[in-house]
Amino acid sequence: MAHIQLNNEHMPGIIGLLNYSPATAAPLTGLANALLAADSSLTKAERELIAASVSWWNGCHFCHTSHAAVAVAHSHSAISLIDDIKKGLPETAITGKLRALLQIAHQVQKGGKHVTEADILAAREEGATDKEIHDTVLIAAAFCMYNRYVDGLGTWAPAANEDYIEMGKMIAESGYGAAVPQELVAVS
Amino acid sequence: MAHIQLNNEHMPGIIGLLNYSPATAAPLTGLANALLAADSSLTKAERELIAASVSWWNGCHFCHTSHAAVAVAHSHSAISLIDDIKKGLPETAITGKLRALLQIAHQVQKGGKHVTEADILAAREEGATDKEIHDTVLIAAAFCMYNRYVDGLGTWAPAANEDYIEMGKMIAESGYGAAVPQELVAVS
Repeated sequence: MAHIQLNNEHMPGIIGLLNYSPATAAPLTGLANALLAADSSLTKAERELIAASVSWWNGCHFCHTSHAAVAVAHSHSAISLIDDIKKGLPETAITGKLRALLQIAHQVQKGGKHVTEADILAAREEGATDKEIHDTVLIAAAFCMYNRYVDGLGTWAPAANEDYIEMGKMIAESGYGAAVPQELVAVS
Repeated sequence: MAHIQLNNEHMPGIIGLLNYSPATAAPLTGLANALLAADSSLTKAERELIAASVSWWNGCHFCHTSHAAVAVAHSHSAISLIDDIKKGLPETAITGKLRALLQIAHQVQKGGKHVTEADILAAREEGATDKEIHDTVLIAAAFCMYNRYVDGLGTWAPAANEDYIEMGKMIAESGYGAAVPQELVAVS
């Protein structure tokens, strides 16, 4: 049960919080769309892998699994991708550039000052542009917010990876702000 | 010098980043206005004290000092408030409710799962409402993002508390998104 009375207890994770507070939901959803759904030289799957990895490092089950499911949808991957993220993607074919950007994201997750010139240089050597480095830092920083919002208010989340697949497809097709799929709604 | 080429090197902290990336600046500024400048049962000074405290705990000099300066402006306090935040506000007259909300914010800064039922109960016993607890968690979470954005990209910041006072007044009067005051612009 959440730490506060949301009056939408069938809605999991951040979905119930966005429903509870429309004034903050608008910029929070706008930021997710700008970072993850808008055009970029990083693919949507790559950006979702950054979001899901940061969420895993922050221990946020809802955000990790839901964004991993969006990455599954974008990349037409097997559902095993969700668990591969937890191990640092050893089984997934990703570019050297994305691996270097994930290292920057991991530093940001620990704290902004953890990012070193060596981390930036390694990403540049793999072909990352300034804009891609900027976007990686902001995606990682934003998920340090979303994760704390979801867990700091004690929201609930479905346990199984399978329960997130339909939402992943919906978000991949329509961006953020779509309706809550029935698979994610608790039986009341 | 920032980790990436911003082409606005006279703009400190997040100001240069917002200028560099207008697509993300819009929701980032909208969120700051919704959390800190919109109407709320928490005063603007109280919300800025939460933002500045979280920024201090995250080691983000620019965000701590600038939001502390906005709190100075809202509360007509002495400039010494900026340093009192670093010590946990021992010299500042704040309510028991705000002290309990600052404890929740400190837990969120460490990680969402650090917030306990006892933290929530203590805030309720001081009169905090569900909405105030929600807003405190989201302000703390949001500054875990802003701080990492500012420091993760290696932006510069003026050192002295005095250099932030004029910006604090401008934001207190006009909200977020105002122009950069000359005091904060580096001589080029």
